[in-house]
Amino acid sequence: MLICDGMADRPVPELGNLTPLEAAQKPNMNGIARRGICGLMDTIAPGVPPGSDTAHLALLGYDPFEVYTGRGPFEAAGAGIDLRAGDIAFRVNYATIDEKLIVKDRRAGRIQDTKQLEVSIQRIKLSGTQILFKSTVAHRATLVIRGKGLSHEVSDSDPHKTDTKVLRVKALSSKAAKTAKLLNEFSRKAYKVLKNHPLNQKRSKQGLPQANYLLLRGAGVAPHLEPLQQKYGFKSACVAAAALVKGVCRMAGMEIIEVPGATGGVNTDLNAKAKAALRALENHELVLLHVKGFDEASHDGNHNAKVKLIERTDAMLGQLIDKTDYIMLTIDHTTPVSVHDHTGDPVPIVISGPAVRADDVRNYDERSTAKGGLGRIRGKYLLPILADLMGKSKKFGA
Amino acid sequence: MLICDGMADRPVPELGNLTPLEAAQKPNMNGIARRGICGLMDTIAPGVPPGSDTAHLALLGYDPFEVYTGRGPFEAAGAGIDLRAGDIAFRVNYATIDEKLIVKDRRAGRIQDTKQLEVSIQRIKLSGTQILFKSTVAHRATLVIRGKGLSHEVSDSDPHKTDTKVLRVKALSSKAAKTAKLLNEFSRKAYKVLKNHPLNQKRSKQGLPQANYLLLRGAGVAPHLEPLQQKYGFKSACVAAAALVKGVCRMAGMEIIEVPGATGGVNTDLNAKAKAALRALENHELVLLHVKGFDEASHDGNHNAKVKLIERTDAMLGQLIDKTDYIMLTIDHTTPVSVHDHTGDPVPIVISGPAVRADDVRNYDERSTAKGGLGRIRGKYLLPILADLMGKSKKFGA
Repeated sequence: MLICDGMADRPVPELGNLTPLEAAQKPNMNGIARRGICGLMDTIAPGVPPGSDTAHLALLGYDPFEVYTGRGPFEAAGAGIDLRAGDIAFRVNYATIDEKLIVKDRRAGRIQDTKQLEVSIQRIKLSGTQILFKSTVAHRATLVIRGKGLSHEVSDSDPHKTDTKVLRVKALSSKAAKTAKLLNEFSRKAYKVLKNHPLNQKRSKQGLPQANYLLLRGAGVAPHLEPLQQKYGFKSACVAAAALVKGVCRMAGMEIIEVPGATGGVNTDLNAKAKAALRALENHELVLLHVKGFDEASHDGNHNAKVKLIERTDAMLGQLIDKTDYIMLTIDHTTPVSVHDHTGDPVPIVISGPAVRADDVRNYDERSTAKGGLGRIRGKYLLPILADLMGKSKKFGA
Repeated sequence: MLICDGMADRPVPELGNLTPLEAAQKPNMNGIARRGICGLMDTIAPGVPPGSDTAHLALLGYDPFEVYTGRGPFEAAGAGIDLRAGDIAFRVNYATIDEKLIVKDRRAGRIQDTKQLEVSIQRIKLSGTQILFKSTVAHRATLVIRGKGLSHEVSDSDPHKTDTKVLRVKALSSKAAKTAKLLNEFSRKAYKVLKNHPLNQKRSKQGLPQANYLLLRGAGVAPHLEPLQQKYGFKSACVAAAALVKGVCRMAGMEIIEVPGATGGVNTDLNAKAKAALRALENHELVLLHVKGFDEASHDGNHNAKVKLIERTDAMLGQLIDKTDYIMLTIDHTTPVSVHDHTGDPVPIVISGPAVRADDVRNYDERSTAKGGLGRIRGKYLLPILADLMGKSKKFGA
């Protein structure tokens, strides 16, 4: 299951009104389309731009409208925290504030090593509530609070801009009052720990901004996701660099395979990822391989970089084609180079393998696959369709 | 957003088994199809013949299965009444009954001016409940009751045929007992007011049937519809003659633009409507233009009148094409000239504009657009898709 993040697009005038996928040389993707069954997919719903987290929930067969309340739990799971259903989780930024609590830098000078700070934060105690805290990459971290009577219906403490005071966490519903109080207590204690921390004293001496505050955002409650193993009876693994994608896969019970050199950028080591996926296939029935650079090229509005990465990905795909029974190639959302952000346009899909009713589509792109045998489907049905082709579905009824 | 009411059809033997859309000369509609992305739409759901009210709810992005309980609220909103969520509303006919309460004419001789009667009815008082009453066109009127503990689960007082006694309003669920009692009290008081009204005394002397009873039907509870402005952040307006269409648009927070000469019939002033739509586009981002005569031609089984109106509408469309960024052309439901009523066949849609992935469909009709790049979608997704193309959608997830 190859997922090319944001690879779909709209017609690009500089490419003669072709999309990057239509303009690229991609013999392997087209070969899969020729041998397979194609279609269009609304990952979430028609016209709804998916996030990375909601998209991957859908691609793994869950209904994001039912299980998604915020990014926090998927950040936390992506950082390797074992969440329990009901945990409240946040995306966190180490940030720099002044003595009047005004945010001066939302990323604390893009601080790189926060290990010592993490350890100090992990020692904070809140009455009757367990705290799990983890630094991830650079200025990023994640916070989980676990206990009785908690709610995700709280506001961010992150003002989302600089030169503004940090916000108090507010309860957005009456049942969240206790949670908001605990989070404000946590924020105060974290500030006290961080501003006096030796690492920050050292940073001040070096003229670097202190990482003296934790900005919370993206509150969400961890859902119960029935593991793929239980749902379909197969072992599955995920090869991805993006934390949110790893988080969703981890919560679905997939094994997370870390690949050195998989950066999530346009220069990510595709060969290393492909090799890791092939190794994983030796003892897993389903491997999700996520390639992220397309989205970055689109956010930068760079159609040439996007075309080139499509061609590199196509070459990488050559290593996988002969070594898999089924291959499903898709995209989590459209990210037009003209928009620089996710949109709600449907994305092309293809599934090839022995049991598919191959159609007459000859190219893997947005317009060609629209005429395919799968028609236009929802993201949440993709994995059930694949599982069924693989003989892993269960009859409903007698 | 041009909505041609009932323009879609089934093959007509007299047209060589073409549909009226396939038989008509319509260069502008075909031009939009060539430049745009086409598809088929089930306005409500496959095989379900939509009403005007439910169709337009769906076309504005609401789920009619969730928000629709009866036509009443949309009649009332179409008459200009500002409804509140929870109001119970009815379509009303001024009717003629005899002293034994037997209905002699369900339209009171198609009485034209009911202003004096309306004023008298508006004075009726019911304990603890507010009444809003408005005459609309000819024998038609609308009633709203507002108060605590009301329910729309009541039966009609309209027997829907003549020479039958008017019906008592019955509670269809236990929680509607109070509402049914209030409506029967209202009906008695209205009868008393009307039968003694000077206008009716005058009509009797002139040999005209009295408008001495109010037949209630189509009970519905006003839903909360999130306004389009809030949902998508754009200002929108509606140019339509049909009361139910205006009612739905009004409840969606759209500005209602009245056009003299827009009658809703086959001879409606299309140019006046197109001009009004163009003026509205000067200070609105979305304008819904509703053309109704097709449905009338179909109800009459007149395929030639239908073909002619399609050609007149196509000429009108020529005025709009160059003056809009995006144009969406669709139909609220199929009304076959052979059936004389709405059916559940899907209808053709096309969207043209800079961001669309134009397909290779060359004609706007039921069969050509079935091969288009939009595939087959539900009506409630049409506006989200358009909003997304216009850059007005919001990402779901992170």
